[in-house]
Amino acid sequence: MKIISGGICAAKGFKANGIHCGIRKNRTKRDLALIVSEKKAAAAGVYTTNLVKGAPNIVTKDNISDGYATAVICNSGNANTCNANGIQIAKEMCVLTADALGIDEKDIIVASTGVIGQPLDITPIKNGIAELVEGLCYDGSLAAEGIMTTDTKLKEVAVSFEIGGKECKIGGIAKGSGMIHPNMATMLVFITTDVAISSEMLQKALSADVKTTFNMVSVDGDTSTNDMVTVMANGMAENQIITAEGKDFDTFCKALNTVNMHLCRMIAGDGEGATKLLECAVSGAENDAVAKTVAKSVICSSLTKAAMFGADANWGRVLCAIGYSGADVDVTKIDVSFKSLAGEILVCKDGAGVDFSEEIAKEILLCEEITILINLNSGKASALAWGCDLTYDYVKINGDYRT
Amino acid sequence: MKIISGGICAAKGFKANGIHCGIRKNRTKRDLALIVSEKKAAAAGVYTTNLVKGAPNIVTKDNISDGYATAVICNSGNANTCNANGIQIAKEMCVLTADALGIDEKDIIVASTGVIGQPLDITPIKNGIAELVEGLCYDGSLAAEGIMTTDTKLKEVAVSFEIGGKECKIGGIAKGSGMIHPNMATMLVFITTDVAISSEMLQKALSADVKTTFNMVSVDGDTSTNDMVTVMANGMAENQIITAEGKDFDTFCKALNTVNMHLCRMIAGDGEGATKLLECAVSGAENDAVAKTVAKSVICSSLTKAAMFGADANWGRVLCAIGYSGADVDVTKIDVSFKSLAGEILVCKDGAGVDFSEEIAKEILLCEEITILINLNSGKASALAWGCDLTYDYVKINGDYRT
Repeated sequence: MKIISGGICAAKGFKANGIHCGIRKNRTKRDLALIVSEKKAAAAGVYTTNLVKGAPNIVTKDNISDGYATAVICNSGNANTCNANGIQIAKEMCVLTADALGIDEKDIIVASTGVIGQPLDITPIKNGIAELVEGLCYDGSLAAEGIMTTDTKLKEVAVSFEIGGKECKIGGIAKGSGMIHPNMATMLVFITTDVAISSEMLQKALSADVKTTFNMVSVDGDTSTNDMVTVMANGMAENQIITAEGKDFDTFCKALNTVNMHLCRMIAGDGEGATKLLECAVSGAENDAVAKTVAKSVICSSLTKAAMFGADANWGRVLCAIGYSGADVDVTKIDVSFKSLAGEILVCKDGAGVDFSEEIAKEILLCEEITILINLNSGKASALAWGCDLTYDYVKINGDYRT
Repeated sequence: MKIISGGICAAKGFKANGIHCGIRKNRTKRDLALIVSEKKAAAAGVYTTNLVKGAPNIVTKDNISDGYATAVICNSGNANTCNANGIQIAKEMCVLTADALGIDEKDIIVASTGVIGQPLDITPIKNGIAELVEGLCYDGSLAAEGIMTTDTKLKEVAVSFEIGGKECKIGGIAKGSGMIHPNMATMLVFITTDVAISSEMLQKALSADVKTTFNMVSVDGDTSTNDMVTVMANGMAENQIITAEGKDFDTFCKALNTVNMHLCRMIAGDGEGATKLLECAVSGAENDAVAKTVAKSVICSSLTKAAMFGADANWGRVLCAIGYSGADVDVTKIDVSFKSLAGEILVCKDGAGVDFSEEIAKEILLCEEITILINLNSGKASALAWGCDLTYDYVKINGDYRT
């Protein structure tokens, strides 16, 4: 398997575009994105568990309940959530897109991201749809830009691999910077692939994968109302269609996992105001649940996140977060180390502090990617979770987001 | 019942003191506090649920397991947690205090607060204990200062009330600013009363009360390792001893609740970096559990906290936090208003936005105490929770706490 360029247009038969249609006031920001498959594709999705759900999530879930989709339409700048006419507007977005593409409105995945509780005006979308369709091309980055909100970096990745001698590709784009604490699904992620796979197996692969990828990311503990990950698989790689578990399915899952893992790290590293990507790697756990609970508790701790911002090796906060995680652990067996490109340093052994060089620790923690290594020394299970530091800029961005 | 001055020395027979003994480098900060009852007092305590427990918590729990205590010794600047010799040091603190007071070491409540994982040197305590005992007086504020860490305000309160014609008093001090997200207990709170009450009834009153007071406070979602609330009741008010439920017990519980509620608001309003006290008042819930879950989820939401800092009426974040709280609510019935001394404004009705004046909302949110009113319109249960805004200074304080 290798990482390739092209993002969501890397796989055969996918075009995309992103434009500024006028939902956002800032004319330099694209606010409408479209992804289209040449052929109708098997489709799968996972969605937020928040009881307050974005209207587009409800419409999308219904639209792809037959297992198929042809296009994704997504706007940024307004979440179309908590609006009395939300469902109607989301459906209008589908109709406009379907008409412009000459396809069925039920084959559209619709998504929105931005402010909650402000009515979404359909006019800019109506006015922009022709330009959006006209500009469809094999450059996925325009669509990746179109779904960004407070993101500072464009998030796209693609991989190529082989199934039964056929070259296959999976590509994905993501947005997500604040209100990131997914559960069952996450922020907005759109994945395209030319692999031939049944809708059932596609959903199975996606549902399983998010548990160790997007569900292990947290920026601020707030689970968004509009989280959504969808995959479209159009079969144009011409591999023998995957309809059951086996070698081909495993290869597909591994490739999907690579794409998702990359997007997770991009999302966490570009958390609102973040200066650092934090990875928490838990090992030696009694079982998977304990490993995951501990990893996620540490990655969510405001105090740990603030310490990482300050490059302060305050490992007591890591222990504290393990202690209140709810996981049943023996605290007297816990070892903690900090690791980055600058090296690795043990700071806690058997639940108590060890002598260590504050200078070396500082050097390690000044890097942009930091791994907090936790060994529970009680078993063989492990887990990874991703997050970011808590900074002045997180507060700044969120102190007055709407203006 | 009326609020009176005197804090922990308001009740008959309690003296206190606080000094700088040298645990902290800053010589202007008191770091050792002592509270002493003239007579052995009935004692009760509640403690952190964090699996990583401060050594003093373990020693205190054991010491007052017989239901009695005479004094509290507490240092700030070091939590004496995650240290190999922690228990030994906590016991030494008891011995030093008991010897200086001429009482039994098992009658001591010992507590520590500050950095986790750095060995606590007993020497400054040993050197300071004589001065500490010598200075015992009826001014509780010195002890209140002695337990402060990043607190910016001294937290003390007292009330007087009558039981069976006898004047009774309850007073309390608290510290707590960061790592505040108590569960079953909270930060450090020491309460004194001259009411005559059995240990059993004292524990019953305390355990019940913290559920609606300290357990409903959150500054940053981090449950500390050293949380502790203790009460000493020395009986010197000479009321007929309370040994069962009834009118006298209810009067006592009400007075205790008043003291605890005041301390809660002080702790939340003085959250690390806070500029505002936030209160979330949930009504119309199906049951108490739903009301509490919703109130606490909103008060814990980083995005809501940051919006309050910016005086931004971004009510969508409140809805979002209700939606992911885990409580089973009908989101289409939710009303949300913001309230402060400047007025009250409805921003969301039946789960959707209403037209409101952004200017009036801003005026309301610029006040120092803000109430987020949530009516679930689904029943009669209600709950209160307290927290604070998320500010640049929270990040600053926690980015490099140890230096």
